[in-house]
Amino acid sequence: MSKNLTTREEDYSKWYNELVVKADLAENSGVKGCMVIKPYGYAIWEKMQAELDRMFKETGHQNAYFPLFVPKSMFEAEEKNAEGFAKECAIVTHYRLKNDPDKPGKLMVDPNAKLEEELIVRPTSEAIIWSTYKKWIQSHRDLPLLINQWANVVRWEMRTRLFLRTAEFLWQEGHTAHATRSEAIEESEKMMNVYADFAENFMGIPVIKGLKTETERFAGAEETYCIEALMQDGKALQAGTSHFLGQNFAKAFDVKFANHEGKLEHVWGTSWGVSTRLMGALVMTHSDDNGLVLPPNLAPIQVVIVPIYKSDEEFAAVSEAAQTLVSQFRKLRVSVKFDDRTTQKPGFKFAEWELKGVPVRIAIGPKDLENGTFEVARRDTLTKEVVQKDGIVTYVNDLLETIQQSLFNKALDYRNSHITKVENFDEFKDVLENKGGFISAHWDGTPETEEKIKEMTKATIRCIALDRVAESGVCVLTGKPSEGRVLFAKAY
Amino acid sequence: MSKNLTTREEDYSKWYNELVVKADLAENSGVKGCMVIKPYGYAIWEKMQAELDRMFKETGHQNAYFPLFVPKSMFEAEEKNAEGFAKECAIVTHYRLKNDPDKPGKLMVDPNAKLEEELIVRPTSEAIIWSTYKKWIQSHRDLPLLINQWANVVRWEMRTRLFLRTAEFLWQEGHTAHATRSEAIEESEKMMNVYADFAENFMGIPVIKGLKTETERFAGAEETYCIEALMQDGKALQAGTSHFLGQNFAKAFDVKFANHEGKLEHVWGTSWGVSTRLMGALVMTHSDDNGLVLPPNLAPIQVVIVPIYKSDEEFAAVSEAAQTLVSQFRKLRVSVKFDDRTTQKPGFKFAEWELKGVPVRIAIGPKDLENGTFEVARRDTLTKEVVQKDGIVTYVNDLLETIQQSLFNKALDYRNSHITKVENFDEFKDVLENKGGFISAHWDGTPETEEKIKEMTKATIRCIALDRVAESGVCVLTGKPSEGRVLFAKAY
Repeated sequence: MSKNLTTREEDYSKWYNELVVKADLAENSGVKGCMVIKPYGYAIWEKMQAELDRMFKETGHQNAYFPLFVPKSMFEAEEKNAEGFAKECAIVTHYRLKNDPDKPGKLMVDPNAKLEEELIVRPTSEAIIWSTYKKWIQSHRDLPLLINQWANVVRWEMRTRLFLRTAEFLWQEGHTAHATRSEAIEESEKMMNVYADFAENFMGIPVIKGLKTETERFAGAEETYCIEALMQDGKALQAGTSHFLGQNFAKAFDVKFANHEGKLEHVWGTSWGVSTRLMGALVMTHSDDNGLVLPPNLAPIQVVIVPIYKSDEEFAAVSEAAQTLVSQFRKLRVSVKFDDRTTQKPGFKFAEWELKGVPVRIAIGPKDLENGTFEVARRDTLTKEVVQKDGIVTYVNDLLETIQQSLFNKALDYRNSHITKVENFDEFKDVLENKGGFISAHWDGTPETEEKIKEMTKATIRCIALDRVAESGVCVLTGKPSEGRVLFAKAY
Repeated sequence: MSKNLTTREEDYSKWYNELVVKADLAENSGVKGCMVIKPYGYAIWEKMQAELDRMFKETGHQNAYFPLFVPKSMFEAEEKNAEGFAKECAIVTHYRLKNDPDKPGKLMVDPNAKLEEELIVRPTSEAIIWSTYKKWIQSHRDLPLLINQWANVVRWEMRTRLFLRTAEFLWQEGHTAHATRSEAIEESEKMMNVYADFAENFMGIPVIKGLKTETERFAGAEETYCIEALMQDGKALQAGTSHFLGQNFAKAFDVKFANHEGKLEHVWGTSWGVSTRLMGALVMTHSDDNGLVLPPNLAPIQVVIVPIYKSDEEFAAVSEAAQTLVSQFRKLRVSVKFDDRTTQKPGFKFAEWELKGVPVRIAIGPKDLENGTFEVARRDTLTKEVVQKDGIVTYVNDLLETIQQSLFNKALDYRNSHITKVENFDEFKDVLENKGGFISAHWDGTPETEEKIKEMTKATIRCIALDRVAESGVCVLTGKPSEGRVLFAKAY
């Protein structure tokens, strides 16, 4: 198959958009701003879900499901949260269509079916969940309450991009309630660490753990922890957030518990989420001009076997060898596909599986059968080697682990070489324009300066890294004193 | 714990409502008609999902995800489908809230943020999916297209009941496209059979497979296959449907494929779904006046171990024995909980796990340790027996299978004894009022008679059973000729 993929060098943004569609991950739908996640893309998302769900359950969380709709009065109860999301809400106002008397065969909104109170399609579920927690929490014995939800949410975005920014997206949102401030902070940090572990060890994406500035904080949170990744074009991507909510939602929804002394106190909350946005991060971290590059942990097909043959006899012999491999791989729980389509040539198949990012390709032809060796190709390095037939399954199984690790290392090297310390604003602009990546710079700590830098350069403070060292210096913009560096970048 | 559960005899409907809430399955939310699925209920739903998902994938289906919203013009394209759902649609008309100038701290819908075209929150996804299939299908090589989606849907119901009828519910919806009529019919029947297999062998709910009458058919389908179950109060419940859509949606959305001769033809479609309604069927098929009775396949906790002790020493000895059992059960992948709460007495724990339907309870006290025997209680029969400690894990593991089978058999006996043949309308009314269940009766085949019977008795035709035998007779209401019996019942 011909891939005709724009190269990253030519136009990174176009490369991304084309790749997501051509590799069958997702496409735009007939509904403005909403995407269709195609089966191949959804299979990757399912693998992310399964691993995250396992990690959440191992850390004591249970799944539940809360309503899609939030009545307006409930939505506005936590004012900062409401204010933060009010400008991008889908609002249900009516509950019935009727035949349009002026246009036969057409329907219209029935004006007699107006809701007494408008319903907001959840942009996030704190309001509906905390209004429920009021019923669930009475005593310290009901705490901690550790709940997660897998759901769709809607934020009305005008400029959308597949996976990165869509009006509707899929995510998980954890919502927990605790007896003490320190327990809730511990939970927020724990879940940030779960996300970092998942991003690095499962997705092969190195991340920086940090705190958001006040400006970038979740609306209604006291503190937002985040993991920040770096894409190949030098732009940052927020890959997950975990919020310490303080008692904000407990106060807004009057959620109190009787402590050990029997006194009523407001509970402490957290919320945390990752979304289908991670699919975008996956694509932009590992893939190349030939198409997707998938870490073996996330590949719906980890190994593809392509037969090379000219005659029916050759096909039969090659198929037999392939089927033996298939059953051996399955025993090791390696996901394998034997591409036995007779309608396509090997070259077409090679290109297709390259485009779709299958980590390992094995080609088997009549000569290989004679020699007792098969050709093994790695998607990540685009290298080939000839491997002895005996033991090839174990060899490839080990290779999958090597690839997983190698992808992470490569991304880590890139990321580490793209954290640049700058000492003044000229350097700042120079690095931002000519190199990209994270810029480690002193900042005077004010939202005003943060805003000015954003206006001037489009760079935002991605985070205050948790592992930053205390270092006194002067703000790159204002020259005012600073106690430590923060990480700036242009971001998705 | 005190259960205070209304008995089925007293008020079946009240018993159901109370049980769903008290057993922590679900509760009403602050959003009219929408429910909160609580962790214990959601854990059961997750088990259903996992099994169904496995069955769908084994039959060649892939998961994908399509938008929550359907633009009005797309919604109305298939006229019958649109007409069928128009009266119960949640409609998004605006995309922004703003501060209400008259009410400080309150929000109002921003009249300047009116959508050009209204969006319907999907009540079902045929429209959005077939509008996508138009892009995905060109050639016979693209067929069959076998897709499933796990999603939430909204149907604006005025009278709602937890799980059985809620404005928002969770479900899966399969949508497939085929080259021929017969292939599509085969698919519809296959998925009906998958549902029946799942209901009977996984949920322990016997079902009758059949066809819906024209009146009861899915809006936009040529034929609706269904599985019908019978609840303990003699009312039927439609547990799943599978629709043969003919070329209706292909024509409405202009979905054509080039056949082997290169000629363009409209494709043939199916759709099929089951929902969180199955949770209601589960409760009403097996449970009793003491609470839930869960089939072992669906029980989040299959075995609970309750310690009996007076002193700390006794507790330590009993706990040790319990922990040994726990690890043995886990090896067999039996889901087990050791209820070591020191805040509750054994009697409270017994009642709580009974209410929550845990299939097997093991009690261990100091005397049991002396005797080398434990007390094993079955939730379904409420019987107890003393079992030798050695081999108890294998014994209980086998017992779980026995219980699974026994629940199905019990439900089957009840169902079979509640299919009553009647020959005239007096008998019909008598059986309906005094016995309930399915009434097997002759019907003249007209929607008018069906409607009249419904008006007079509230009974509807649940299905034309697939295994019915040809038998000429006369309609119970009109005396007109009939070629076979159909099954009537009052239904949920």
